[in-house]
Amino acid sequence: MIQGNFAVAQSGGPTAAINATLLGVIKEAISNGRKIYGMVNGILGAVNNNFVELNSTFEKEENCELLKLTPAAYLGSCRFKLPDTDEKKELFEQIFENFNKLNITMVLYIGGNDSMDTVKKLSEYALKNGKNVSFVGVPKTIDNDLMGTDHTPGFGSAAKFVATTVSEIARDSAVYANPSATIIEIMGRNAGWLTAASALARSKTSSAPHLIYLPERPLSVKQLIEDVKNCPEKNIIIAVSEGIRNENGIYFSNLDCNLSHDEFGHAQLSGSASVVESIIKDNFGIKTRSVELNVLQRCSSHFASLTDLDESVMIGSAGVKAILEGQTGIVMGFNRIGDYKIEIISNKATDVANLEKAVPSDYIAENGHDVTEKALKYLSPLIMGEPQMITENGIPKHISLK
Amino acid sequence: MIQGNFAVAQSGGPTAAINATLLGVIKEAISNGRKIYGMVNGILGAVNNNFVELNSTFEKEENCELLKLTPAAYLGSCRFKLPDTDEKKELFEQIFENFNKLNITMVLYIGGNDSMDTVKKLSEYALKNGKNVSFVGVPKTIDNDLMGTDHTPGFGSAAKFVATTVSEIARDSAVYANPSATIIEIMGRNAGWLTAASALARSKTSSAPHLIYLPERPLSVKQLIEDVKNCPEKNIIIAVSEGIRNENGIYFSNLDCNLSHDEFGHAQLSGSASVVESIIKDNFGIKTRSVELNVLQRCSSHFASLTDLDESVMIGSAGVKAILEGQTGIVMGFNRIGDYKIEIISNKATDVANLEKAVPSDYIAENGHDVTEKALKYLSPLIMGEPQMITENGIPKHISLK
Repeated sequence: MIQGNFAVAQSGGPTAAINATLLGVIKEAISNGRKIYGMVNGILGAVNNNFVELNSTFEKEENCELLKLTPAAYLGSCRFKLPDTDEKKELFEQIFENFNKLNITMVLYIGGNDSMDTVKKLSEYALKNGKNVSFVGVPKTIDNDLMGTDHTPGFGSAAKFVATTVSEIARDSAVYANPSATIIEIMGRNAGWLTAASALARSKTSSAPHLIYLPERPLSVKQLIEDVKNCPEKNIIIAVSEGIRNENGIYFSNLDCNLSHDEFGHAQLSGSASVVESIIKDNFGIKTRSVELNVLQRCSSHFASLTDLDESVMIGSAGVKAILEGQTGIVMGFNRIGDYKIEIISNKATDVANLEKAVPSDYIAENGHDVTEKALKYLSPLIMGEPQMITENGIPKHISLK
Repeated sequence: MIQGNFAVAQSGGPTAAINATLLGVIKEAISNGRKIYGMVNGILGAVNNNFVELNSTFEKEENCELLKLTPAAYLGSCRFKLPDTDEKKELFEQIFENFNKLNITMVLYIGGNDSMDTVKKLSEYALKNGKNVSFVGVPKTIDNDLMGTDHTPGFGSAAKFVATTVSEIARDSAVYANPSATIIEIMGRNAGWLTAASALARSKTSSAPHLIYLPERPLSVKQLIEDVKNCPEKNIIIAVSEGIRNENGIYFSNLDCNLSHDEFGHAQLSGSASVVESIIKDNFGIKTRSVELNVLQRCSSHFASLTDLDESVMIGSAGVKAILEGQTGIVMGFNRIGDYKIEIISNKATDVANLEKAVPSDYIAENGHDVTEKALKYLSPLIMGEPQMITENGIPKHISLK
């Protein structure tokens, strides 16, 4: 067992579950009788010697429950890419000096792709320069595009938000007798995992979304028009990834099309959904509407996936166990057994950092506008269950550092 | 007690609670041993003889629970304005003939402002032409802008969605160390009730939103810049109504300003939030983001206000009681007693149809960018409580007509 104290940081874009992972880390450190410090704003906290002691707050069970249900990053985040290890030695020395002041020998870093690069660099520097500090990465991202894990913590809650919201918008769109098209824009510039999850909105009483477009599959304007023409639905619901591209690789959001104007005379554009909306309006003359789910996909936590939250706690806790046993330079991950059980695994940070995992082609229907049964089987278990919310004055109660 | 059967319709834009009101109507009719028919797509159902029998479906308790939790309009809706009673007599005769075929003598019409005009016209026509059919309106709208009622069914759930979502977006925005402004656009072109409800996002751990702009108060670009300059927050959250106007009465969404471009080179515009975003970006050079809550405000039902849902059932039921006792040409409403109890009242449809209720000036702070304590006291009880959701495959289960 490694001696010394823990530090933990959160990095990259927030999710509904990144604080659940933080909770898993904190609880496991406390249950091992160790001190644990939070680095404020990711690696910047270590650079600037901005640490916060976490034991006293999270020895109280009510604060633990609140942390699990609070969206975004309790410790703050950063988008700071560490330079190469031999490039700016003084920066690395400063970080390790600050760790040393608090006797921090074990650092858990919760983040996405770029953050795993931080884990890789710091662990390599420590090994090369005889620093007695270990680093373990714990993944998170709503995008689900990390290698070396069945899925990422945070994705399940975002997927549940997408599926739930698409199902509600479909109800809303279906109330009028006149034909309409509603286009819903979903996050994911290169990987269409979240857009694929919109298929989970379907139920015995709704077949929406009727068309689903992922960035993994080029979409010509001609094909889009053909698909809409062939769709038998009166009120069409279309789920599009923000990153859909045409056959020449040009983002739809950059297409120079004849944009429609709304009743106030201003052009309706912004993202891929607005462009798809304009194309449909111009070609079919039906009522159209585009809805961008925007940051709600990553911060809506009042109907999170309990599976996601529980797994996020679990992987945080597993990271602590691994580092205590002497591991460094690794990133934790999930392995799926049957349908559906999860075991925790780990990969070398060098093997997973800076890579992106796209939706595989056998998850995308041949017609290019749907997902396959295999995709649904993969996605479905990830959105199961809901946490019991704690509310105050009618809204969810959160916990904050300040 | 009036003899005969019931009909019920839903009209105008959907809400999260309009089906709860429908449930109140159906249950009360059934408990009085009557037959009840749904008019499909509002008054169009009566015009086109498109009725659906409701007793058999809603004698099952599980379907009642689902109806209460299903957003949008179970019976479909319409935006059809009836002509004047002496203008198109054959249309009115057709409607009453269709009612007569099913022995419908009592009609409940659930809707907003325009729908109360339908109640007014049909009840007047019936009285003038000796038709034995009574009409009672039951209000709904997320906009809360109807006269003759303390608040409208549907508003509380939309207000709770706005408050909850603003609180979550505020967490998301606060994670980075760099200054930023996030502008959230909320529905309400002439009345700022929903935007005012964003103030309910504040808690012991968050002071967001920091600036709130309602359409009732003109806002000059100069004042906006001044307000942002004076705001001490690092990560500013601004709630704007879609209908904010400048000192010359021009909608912000129509302002011809120097629009910023995002990293993909396309202009970022559409509504008032985008214009406010551009102004802040151009004047302060900080990171900005605008979020349009869009239709989610009216269809997000998975975290509805239980107070709203329960009151919506209650007012539907009260409408049935009133019509059975011989009332016609009235619109049901809420009267608030103390803080907080509700009693059901009614008004003549002629007194409330086609009018709009704005946010009163003593609900708006003198500085023009906040609401008063009085507003908070009014709004707060309306968002209390949450229903226990029924889910299937990880998403809320709904009921649908088809």
